[in-house]
Amino acid sequence: MKIYDFEGFPNPARVRIALKEKGLFDQVEFISVNVPEGEHRKPEFLEKNPSATIPVLELDDGTTISECSAITEYIDSLAGEQELTGESPKERGIIAMMQRRAEAGLLDAVGTYFHHATPGLGEAIETYQCAEWGNHQKERAVSTMRYLDGVLAQQPYLAGDAFSVADITAFAGLSFADFAGVETPDDCKHLAQWRTNVEARPSIAC
Amino acid sequence: MKIYDFEGFPNPARVRIALKEKGLFDQVEFISVNVPEGEHRKPEFLEKNPSATIPVLELDDGTTISECSAITEYIDSLAGEQELTGESPKERGIIAMMQRRAEAGLLDAVGTYFHHATPGLGEAIETYQCAEWGNHQKERAVSTMRYLDGVLAQQPYLAGDAFSVADITAFAGLSFADFAGVETPDDCKHLAQWRTNVEARPSIAC
Ligand SMILES: N[C@@H](CCC(=O)N[C@@H](CS)C(=O)NCC(=O)O)C(=O)O
Ligand SMILES: N[C@@H](CCC(=O)N[C@@H](CS)C(=O)NCC(=O)O)C(=O)O
Repeated sequence: MKIYDFEGFPNPARVRIALKEKGLFDQVEFISVNVPEGEHRKPEFLEKNPSATIPVLELDDGTTISECSAITEYIDSLAGEQELTGESPKERGIIAMMQRRAEAGLLDAVGTYFHHATPGLGEAIETYQCAEWGNHQKERAVSTMRYLDGVLAQQPYLAGDAFSVADITAFAGLSFADFAGVETPDDCKHLAQWRTNVEARPSIAC
Repeated sequence: MKIYDFEGFPNPARVRIALKEKGLFDQVEFISVNVPEGEHRKPEFLEKNPSATIPVLELDDGTTISECSAITEYIDSLAGEQELTGESPKERGIIAMMQRRAEAGLLDAVGTYFHHATPGLGEAIETYQCAEWGNHQKERAVSTMRYLDGVLAQQPYLAGDAFSVADITAFAGLSFADFAGVETPDDCKHLAQWRTNVEARPSIAC
């Protein structure tokens, strides 16, 4: 399989971490799409993903799958136990919920702030901006950090006792927040401790 | 299991349709949460879902699951084949991708238009509005309709040959669009035909 992405970007990081967690990283050919130069908006790429975002997974039969939540679903179902998305209905439901909360409330909220209320990727890429909404989403990101901190006061990982795709999404969200200049409140001690633990995982540290 | 929702609202409809598709509707006790009157922002409800949205699924052990994508994941894993979310990794990946595109590009885009660029649920509920962003999301909803129309020119359902949760989300999105006054372009003939087909399913017609 191939993955079209751009190293160092937050959404690509989600899939790269998931691949390493599953031991599948070496089976993937990575193809770089130069997002800062607008390569993701060219017709050849839009055929792979009409939403014009990376990452995109391409299977050997040519099928293309975009959206990190969908790509990680594929990867996790592929080999071994569904350790990132859960095995039982209850685990699957809770993980999907926490993943969505981390995605909408943190990662995508930071992304909207970055692309709308800062220079983002520059004038050529940021052809439409709505700063008012971007700033509102920054507030949402910070309140999601506080919410996640509260969850982590009760349990080691976002969906319970085990590391899951919800943790991957939130981790990428915090990295993006650092990059975009959205500070994590100092009193989010549980979130900070969790981040240190997650950072030490071989899928991230190595 | 219990579901906290409000009959007739678009997100609750997604879960109600999924339950009927799975033959589980009669096993659920529905509890009405009066969203137009703000009941979903009261402390008792926020304990069930800090995001203050319906629907919320409550399991017999008290676990609460919000987010339709997570609730339908639970429901679909519970009984029989995973006919709504897919069986093989490839099916699961494609369905999750199309579900997310229909959700972000259509249902949530219409919701943002409704809550931000129209009177929405009224002054008491719409305490923050950003009309500029709401109108931008209306455009996004219409371009997603065109995109879905193109998909349905090639295949009977959004994720391929079989009905899936992606169709449920898009169907709820079009109902919400009607309600909010976002018109489907007349030339979206494939989308219109698909809608007629989906409407005839027992889970929706009955
Ligand atoms: N919801 C998408 C988000 C993907 C996304 O926004 N990726 C960024 C890079 S991290 C991108 O491609 N941005 C293109 C742009 O801003 O034009 C997913 O889960 O894959
Ligand atoms: N992403 C959520 C969306 C749920 C949602 O927005 N529900 C609406 C009713 S259809 C709601 O509760 N709105 C409350 C509000 O606008 O304050 C899901 O999938 O469940």
